[in-house]
Amino acid sequence: MELTRRQEAILGIVKAEGPITSEQIAERLNVARATLRPDLALLTMAGLLEARPRVGYYYTGKSPYEVVANKIRRYRVKDLHSRPVVVSVETTVYDALITLFLEDVGTLFVVREGGFLEGVVSRKDFLKLAFGGQDFRSVPVSVIMTRRPHVITTTPEESAWEAARKIVVHEVDALPVVEPAASGQDLLVVGRFSKTNVTRLFVEMGEGR
Amino acid sequence: MELTRRQEAILGIVKAEGPITSEQIAERLNVARATLRPDLALLTMAGLLEARPRVGYYYTGKSPYEVVANKIRRYRVKDLHSRPVVVSVETTVYDALITLFLEDVGTLFVVREGGFLEGVVSRKDFLKLAFGGQDFRSVPVSVIMTRRPHVITTTPEESAWEAARKIVVHEVDALPVVEPAASGQDLLVVGRFSKTNVTRLFVEMGEGR
Repeated sequence: MELTRRQEAILGIVKAEGPITSEQIAERLNVARATLRPDLALLTMAGLLEARPRVGYYYTGKSPYEVVANKIRRYRVKDLHSRPVVVSVETTVYDALITLFLEDVGTLFVVREGGFLEGVVSRKDFLKLAFGGQDFRSVPVSVIMTRRPHVITTTPEESAWEAARKIVVHEVDALPVVEPAASGQDLLVVGRFSKTNVTRLFVEMGEGR
Repeated sequence: MELTRRQEAILGIVKAEGPITSEQIAERLNVARATLRPDLALLTMAGLLEARPRVGYYYTGKSPYEVVANKIRRYRVKDLHSRPVVVSVETTVYDALITLFLEDVGTLFVVREGGFLEGVVSRKDFLKLAFGGQDFRSVPVSVIMTRRPHVITTTPEESAWEAARKIVVHEVDALPVVEPAASGQDLLVVGRFSKTNVTRLFVEMGEGR
């Protein structure tokens, strides 16, 4: 939300001196009370100010950015995630790498029969093995993957913002989107949520969509 | 911006019937004109409606999302970018890979003396070489890099949104932030703008910062 200079001034006064009546604010700004009415209405509706009868306006502690923040937090992972690219735990690193190239993704999810999550393998894991000079054909992907329970996951219902926060905090590129399996501890892999999904959303939001 | 049900109703009426006076809108909604005043003020200030004297309110064609879009487009690359991690064109793939691990980045910028951009090399480029079974120690990084002029770049002054759009459209993870060198065609590498920067910004925006 774009605030005008006068609205910024009102916010500043209420922050410093609130609770304060509209008469007092009008006095400080040297304008008529009626002039301020639309500004005060706007600031109140935007949630930046609150008005208490017989007390006056006070600052709610929310920033104008909160409006944007609220919109951002409303996206769910399920609105944005991509289809998961999975390999079996028995796959060799060589075959997993072929899948990585063919599907052109940065992260593969490693599953056992039934699609249950066992681990995650990223470009970085492959590079470490290559650096060690080991033969890709003899090593199963399970040797280089990050294993549950060390894998950071998200769910379809989680907010995209919370999932993005996990990506930043844990310094990973992608999260498996999982749902608990009927069987209890197991996690069914249903999607992939990555920095790419966040970047796409950012671009779309900037287009006003 | 969160619109109330009444504000949505007003928008709908103006969209369908505008230009329309506040008296007519009040009639449609069966409320007093005074009741609508703060709503109309808010919708006008948010840029969703415009008021023309003696004509009435009309719809500007902007969506409520435009408010968020405008905020997003105001960030510049220079507000967000990271320090660049560079290697020289003469570096071997082996030494470049060590830099990649030590600095824990996904993309290196390849420069010649003076810090001028020659190319970009990503984890994917390294993996392709590893897949081919070639010796990392004998190959210079310039063999596997993407060369100028095929490198997609951004500048400190470009909007973060436009840079993010380049990342999505060209399917890359990071862009070198460059400034034209005094010498003419050359580009000085001054930063790195990646999906990580966008994801961090997204998280910060969701925190209301």
